Amino acid sequence: MRKIDLNCDLGESFGPWKMGLDEAIIPLVSSVNIACGFHAGDPVVMQKTVALAKQYHAAAGAHPGFPDLAGFGRRTMNLSPAEVKAAVQYQIGALEAFCRAAGIPLVHVKPHGALYNMAARDPALARAVAEGIREINPRLIVLGLAGSALIAEAREAGLSAAEEVFADRAYEEDGTLVARTKPGAMITGEDEAIGRVIGMVKTGTVRAITGKEISVKADSVCVHGDGEKALLFVRKLNEAFRNEGITVAPLPA
Amino acid sequence: MRKIDLNCDLGESFGPWKMGLDEAIIPLVSSVNIACGFHAGDPVVMQKTVALAKQYHAAAGAHPGFPDLAGFGRRTMNLSPAEVKAAVQYQIGALEAFCRAAGIPLVHVKPHGALYNMAARDPALARAVAEGIREINPRLIVLGLAGSALIAEAREAGLSAAEEVFADRAYEEDGTLVARTKPGAMITGEDEAIGRVIGMVKTGTVRAITGKEISVKADSVCVHGDGEKALLFVRKLNEAFRNEGITVAPLPA
Amino acid sequence: MRKIDLNCDLGESFGPWKMGLDEAIIPLVSSVNIACGFHAGDPVVMQKTVALAKQYHAAAGAHPGFPDLAGFGRRTMNLSPAEVKAAVQYQIGALEAFCRAAGIPLVHVKPHGALYNMAARDPALARAVAEGIREINPRLIVLGLAGSALIAEAREAGLSAAEEVFADRAYEEDGTLVARTKPGAMITGEDEAIGRVIGMVKTGTVRAITGKEISVKADSVCVHGDGEKALLFVRKLNEAFRNEGITVAPLPA
Amino acid sequence: MRKIDLNCDLGESFGPWKMGLDEAIIPLVSSVNIACGFHAGDPVVMQKTVALAKQYHAAAGAHPGFPDLAGFGRRTMNLSPAEVKAAVQYQIGALEAFCRAAGIPLVHVKPHGALYNMAARDPALARAVAEGIREINPRLIVLGLAGSALIAEAREAGLSAAEEVFADRAYEEDGTLVARTKPGAMITGEDEAIGRVIGMVKTGTVRAITGKEISVKADSVCVHGDGEKALLFVRKLNEAFRNEGITVAPLPA
Repeated sequence: MRKIDLNCDLGESFGPWKMGLDEAIIPLVSSVNIACGFHAGDPVVMQKTVALAKQYHAAAGAHPGFPDLAGFGRRTMNLSPAEVKAAVQYQIGALEAFCRAAGIPLVHVKPHGALYNMAARDPALARAVAEGIREINPRLIVLGLAGSALIAEAREAGLSAAEEVFADRAYEEDGTLVARTKPGAMITGEDEAIGRVIGMVKTGTVRAITGKEISVKADSVCVHGDGEKALLFVRKLNEAFRNEGITVAPLPA
Repeated sequence: MRKIDLNCDLGESFGPWKMGLDEAIIPLVSSVNIACGFHAGDPVVMQKTVALAKQYHAAAGAHPGFPDLAGFGRRTMNLSPAEVKAAVQYQIGALEAFCRAAGIPLVHVKPHGALYNMAARDPALARAVAEGIREINPRLIVLGLAGSALIAEAREAGLSAAEEVFADRAYEEDGTLVARTKPGAMITGEDEAIGRVIGMVKTGTVRAITGKEISVKADSVCVHGDGEKALLFVRKLNEAFRNEGITVAPLPA
Repeated sequence: MRKIDLNCDLGESFGPWKMGLDEAIIPLVSSVNIACGFHAGDPVVMQKTVALAKQYHAAAGAHPGFPDLAGFGRRTMNLSPAEVKAAVQYQIGALEAFCRAAGIPLVHVKPHGALYNMAARDPALARAVAEGIREINPRLIVLGLAGSALIAEAREAGLSAAEEVFADRAYEEDGTLVARTKPGAMITGEDEAIGRVIGMVKTGTVRAITGKEISVKADSVCVHGDGEKALLFVRKLNEAFRNEGITVAPLPA
Repeated sequence: MRKIDLNCDLGESFGPWKMGLDEAIIPLVSSVNIACGFHAGDPVVMQKTVALAKQYHAAAGAHPGFPDLAGFGRRTMNLSPAEVKAAVQYQIGALEAFCRAAGIPLVHVKPHGALYNMAARDPALARAVAEGIREINPRLIVLGLAGSALIAEAREAGLSAAEEVFADRAYEEDGTLVARTKPGAMITGEDEAIGRVIGMVKTGTVRAITGKEISVKADSVCVHGDGEKALLFVRKLNEAFRNEGITVAPLPA
């Protein structure tokens, strides 16, 4: 029986500002990446989001980002590997406190935004993230871009790594995502997007933007809960998985 | 054999800004309260400070404060008990991550600055702090003002509580500290200060500012490492303890 | 001809987080209080909000608050008068830069949240705010709670002060607002609320919660743009003013 | 009579943390670049630093940086040009408020740290900085790396631009600074450093690291006040200027 994890970023509200339809998306996913207060989230939001993960039996993961609230962690910042390692450990520890208080395990770590992208390409940053995680808890699963430097460094560090794919993004021949600025970067047709994900799960391949069939490992699919349209897509995706006999389930511990 | 803990605030540097003579004071104390990034400290500073605690076999404690860097956590802020609880859990978790990475235990929690003072007086805030700690790790020791609401609430929550005394502060008859704005609030003579602490440890009493002898429990003495004069005082205090047969040792786990 | 100013807080978004229906409310008011980056707002949001004020010919005011983003400036913080004065000057200067770049004047200053409440009651804080404003630009109008310490200190400092009333709040006999925690604090009936404001403008009096008729000066009415219901109320209020021959207009320079 | 400006970064303390020997360096320079609260400085520090500039008749300039306190604005951040422009306007406005309150003019703007370096190389960022400044006050002088994109864009925008040289840095043939990571990047001999600056002022040339004599315009020399050695160097530099008949004076308004 085939399995796939569906993951979604959660807990991105901050203080008085709300973001995301957390209550609506969480029943539709198996894993949640919870913001840790650097790019989004605050202690009260984190506590509530962990409670939500517990209530819906979603696997809780840390979603550490750059210390850039106004930029939502999406702006490249050249932190040194030592700074990245410490920032990741700090954020994981903070989130794990709320998990422990709630009596649920912290299962995975997925870097956010610019840190996700930089750790996908830069082996030194990827190693900093992986070592930071291993030092805290070597059973934490690293969730990163399929085929990226982060996946390689996580395994090198002896950690479990889960490879993430995107339903709505085109791929280059080397397995990297087509830059959003290029034509054809986004897969806008819902049926096409769903078809591609089903293909990735069942065959381990996807058609690159050049037309060539490439290998891609799909342990988890990243989905969004930021609007009614996004929710509808995730419902359709769940239905398609069901029809194909693919079980949506958290990453194996 | 009598024992006393000597504790000091550590890791109060931030980014490029240095504060305190951490390397000089740490050999002279048995416990350190490490800032957790809200009122002082940052992830890199925390990581280094935990390494220092490990190197000198000082018991590591979390020193959570209000989210007020510019005010160094010394300004009263009316966070709700729920906000205080979440802020304390966040900070403890963040620090514990560095302790775990370094392979040393997190031993105690001492609130900082305005949070320390407010949790000493306000049972609801004290309860929020105590419950926040217990939910994370019921073996953590709460270090607070001797005789304060925080000590009472920590015990009520089933936690170990350690009572802190001050060598350089006068006491009211009810065991609270004389406000710094009042005449006589500070004990400026070093010998007098040392004599008072020795007395507190040996007899469990101290002379209040009114002249009356009052009871005070001294599990730990708070000292400072912010200048040469402070260091000299701590050296003298250590010597006095030695002469009196009092062992300086961390709080009993 | 009677005139009244309608003011609304604007520019309370931050980074990726949206707050308020700024485009919908601004045509319905004569003055806007623009957040300055401490409790809400960021440089890009401020720049856009000033552009909006220019487009709709609304009088632009600074809305300085406490440095407490997570708490939205609503939590009491005991900044010293010197800290308050500097924080207010900093925020006014920052906002004035955007006004100057846009070619519109900065007209007034209204403290936000906890700072508004504290400066209404505490003459020392009120004086710090007033002196901070006067040192920068003595032609700025101070907008504060009708009858409050801030109004008195602003006039004492030689500044113009405009007195603000609330349509949806009950008043004590001494002209202060009934605390939100007390029964009857909120005027929930829309017609009653509008009737009270019309009365304040036309007669300079309002019925206190005790039943006694008290004096109140109404230079400006505070309204909200945080939802469809709030917008509807402001439309009704505008209509009622029109029917009563009361002109909605900015504070006189 | 030859003139040169000596400029120094000032007001880099933050909250309880002190940085720099501001009182010692200010009598030795003609211009000061005052941190504006994003990478260093806070409202109270800014107010005091402006008072110091007034007392010593030093020309006051704004020193805007990236919103990265922990990284002291030294870490590259990819803010968009629109974000940079708004951030620069915000910070200039905030500082100008303190200048106005003190009754002294704001004379110049020098970007700080990573923003300085990025605006020196990237014309789009340089233009954002220059336009941001011009929109606020077209009489503000832009102080930037001699020969850089910022100087060019400032002039393109119709602003006065002053070219800054470094006594302690080697130059490439194209007039850029030799990267600190390269051997020979730093001029460590004090006499050599002073000789080079004198040469730049008197002849408009300097020997590049390749040995070739290159042109360089020296309107201002950047000096530091972060230690006794730095202070001693600035004293020697002042003396050397005196001996050569070169007057140390602020940038011409």
